[in-house]
Amino acid sequence: MHRRDLLRAAALFPAAAWLPRVPSVAEAGAIARPIPRAADDEAYWAEIRRQFLITDGIFMNTGTWGALPLPVLEAIEAHMRAFETVFHQVPFDVHAFRGQLATLVGVPPETLAFTRNTTEGMNVVARGLDLEPGDEILTTTQEHVGGRCCWELVAARHNLVLREFEPPVPAPSEDALFEAWTSAVGPRTRVLSISHIYFSTGAIQPVRRLAEWARARGIITVVDGAHPPGMIALDITDLGCDFYASSPHKWLLAPKGSGFLYVSPAWIDRLWPLVASGGWDDLALKGDRFDHVGTRNDSLLVGFQASLAFHNAIGTERIERRSRGLATRLDAGLRAQPLVRVVSPSAPEVRSAMVSFQVEGMAGTDVVRQLWTMGPVRVRHVAENNLDYVRLSTHVYNNPDEVDRVVGMVGEIARNQ
Amino acid sequence: MHRRDLLRAAALFPAAAWLPRVPSVAEAGAIARPIPRAADDEAYWAEIRRQFLITDGIFMNTGTWGALPLPVLEAIEAHMRAFETVFHQVPFDVHAFRGQLATLVGVPPETLAFTRNTTEGMNVVARGLDLEPGDEILTTTQEHVGGRCCWELVAARHNLVLREFEPPVPAPSEDALFEAWTSAVGPRTRVLSISHIYFSTGAIQPVRRLAEWARARGIITVVDGAHPPGMIALDITDLGCDFYASSPHKWLLAPKGSGFLYVSPAWIDRLWPLVASGGWDDLALKGDRFDHVGTRNDSLLVGFQASLAFHNAIGTERIERRSRGLATRLDAGLRAQPLVRVVSPSAPEVRSAMVSFQVEGMAGTDVVRQLWTMGPVRVRHVAENNLDYVRLSTHVYNNPDEVDRVVGMVGEIARNQ
Repeated sequence: MHRRDLLRAAALFPAAAWLPRVPSVAEAGAIARPIPRAADDEAYWAEIRRQFLITDGIFMNTGTWGALPLPVLEAIEAHMRAFETVFHQVPFDVHAFRGQLATLVGVPPETLAFTRNTTEGMNVVARGLDLEPGDEILTTTQEHVGGRCCWELVAARHNLVLREFEPPVPAPSEDALFEAWTSAVGPRTRVLSISHIYFSTGAIQPVRRLAEWARARGIITVVDGAHPPGMIALDITDLGCDFYASSPHKWLLAPKGSGFLYVSPAWIDRLWPLVASGGWDDLALKGDRFDHVGTRNDSLLVGFQASLAFHNAIGTERIERRSRGLATRLDAGLRAQPLVRVVSPSAPEVRSAMVSFQVEGMAGTDVVRQLWTMGPVRVRHVAENNLDYVRLSTHVYNNPDEVDRVVGMVGEIARNQ
Repeated sequence: MHRRDLLRAAALFPAAAWLPRVPSVAEAGAIARPIPRAADDEAYWAEIRRQFLITDGIFMNTGTWGALPLPVLEAIEAHMRAFETVFHQVPFDVHAFRGQLATLVGVPPETLAFTRNTTEGMNVVARGLDLEPGDEILTTTQEHVGGRCCWELVAARHNLVLREFEPPVPAPSEDALFEAWTSAVGPRTRVLSISHIYFSTGAIQPVRRLAEWARARGIITVVDGAHPPGMIALDITDLGCDFYASSPHKWLLAPKGSGFLYVSPAWIDRLWPLVASGGWDDLALKGDRFDHVGTRNDSLLVGFQASLAFHNAIGTERIERRSRGLATRLDAGLRAQPLVRVVSPSAPEVRSAMVSFQVEGMAGTDVVRQLWTMGPVRVRHVAENNLDYVRLSTHVYNNPDEVDRVVGMVGEIARNQ
């Protein structure tokens, strides 16, 4: 009914006549420019930087949420304003968009459902599996609450066991992480709940190897993939995990409240949806069974689609090279400062675009506060699980100069404490 | 961390200097005007009508979603644009807003949680109660999928019984509805799942009497309250139900994807959250236990707050008188047309601001299609549960002239079939 209305409206009125005039970003005091196709140099990245509204500071907390590119902001506003005319709405094809997203993350489209965030996706899985009393979920002491609390709840409610082990920090290598996991598995372990990239240190875990190992033993792998999409190249099918939950409002620069959940073909007909509405038990619907959650905000999905287009216009490979390259520069700079202890991996293949550190003798909150005063630099204090790290994220809107300035500030803070 | 950052940013920069320039609606081709305080006449309502972007048609489907007032649209855009500067964000106090919403709906603030919509709220309840195999949930054959499917799922998964009875249509009186419910209750009935206002016919159910009756018998009352907030005066505490789920993106004209759930004090410490994140088991948090759902879109909540302010500027009593008054005019007009059978109640105290009808000898889809061609008039076809109704909603942006024109069109459609 709704979709038909939209198509009918589109057919009735020629676009030019009915599309309401949307204020351009130029009118709003900022200029959206075409994304250049030039070489991967500072001029290119400076042009990319102009697509953002970030002003008067250094933003290094993409790990919490990414800033919206202007075309994304404009897409949301244009969709909302057209929608509110009622009779001049712009049709949005959620299935076409799902196909585009599926291409980015390497899965069949029908295995994806849209969520608000990783936390919701992880809860869909935890609440949707039929585990038995005594079954064990294994995870680590470095998890984000969004990936851990869902298991705490089902453990408390259904007499399951949630067991955590301490992974090596800093992670010395992929092998060390792999061995820490496999040696922690016990006879009742039914589920591995794995952060693809640790929110705490940015360490990249060997999900592909772990999923293969687990599959051979009948153990389910659930991945908290909040960070990878938009930061690193991702092929979820190749990873071979059973479930993958993500928050594209971080590195993919999608609107806040954007998420997706991958449910592998082996589980798509067996998992119970978290929110049941029309079609919840119609197995022919595949991923749509998890996507009928009542009225949500399509304008945000339109923005999500625009952020994917922005990402693709630059290219995954180029973005990954840039963001991880800046992190490598940041890592090297921080290690050269006295009293600074980097807790992120030193091996570049295990380190992502997040670098966490501590300053000897100082509380993390003090470091965060001083960076805010000196910059301002906006960073993340990791206080969860009794940790005390300062986390820096580097993305397409950052540059080497910002990295060097932040390294200089950290050195000064450490020396002057 | 996040909230502290915001406050810090607010302290660092004087507002005038840092607030990014947001395009006004005047620039966007529409004029937001102050809401007049004048008398309840057509000039007043014409001024209200100018606060909306609705163009080139008659919008009578508020029962699906309401159109956004311009100040709401502007509030969303201003918050988003400020947020994306990173260093010039406008703090949003979600607890203050919750207090304002609590005042509107007559509950203690700590009993409210924000959701996306009624469907989600109903699922929170269905999945959060510890029911026993064999326990029966009683509801009717006129429910919206968003209020029914959650029970279907838990019934299938946990061997509960979902039983439906057919309520009287058209509903002759409150007494008749009350008696239909109470006589349908059986010995194993544990839950009544009640639509406060039927999505299908707009009939208002006697929730207060039903809740009192049920409470005396240890039966839980769960209310699908998608429609009342923003349409009629609402005092949930006075209703005395255990749970109340709503979709303020309908009659309260909040952004799409706005919802709230009321959990009565008796249940606030006992219900399991649907999405578990930090604090899910901290009973001191009360409603916040259900509100920690990971990153969501605060700009939409800012819009929700603006829509509540818009509502309050007009006043609940005035809005209810207007929207129900238009429905009464519509009802009378439709009843005077040959071949038109109104399925909404004839008694004004049971009829809300939604009027549903059938045209003898015609499929509802044909009527809907012809109204679209002739108006366009945007209405709702109710095809669920093997029903075939055409539903019209009347709200603050409608007026007597629109009502009369639609009545005329329906008469013409019926005569010319």
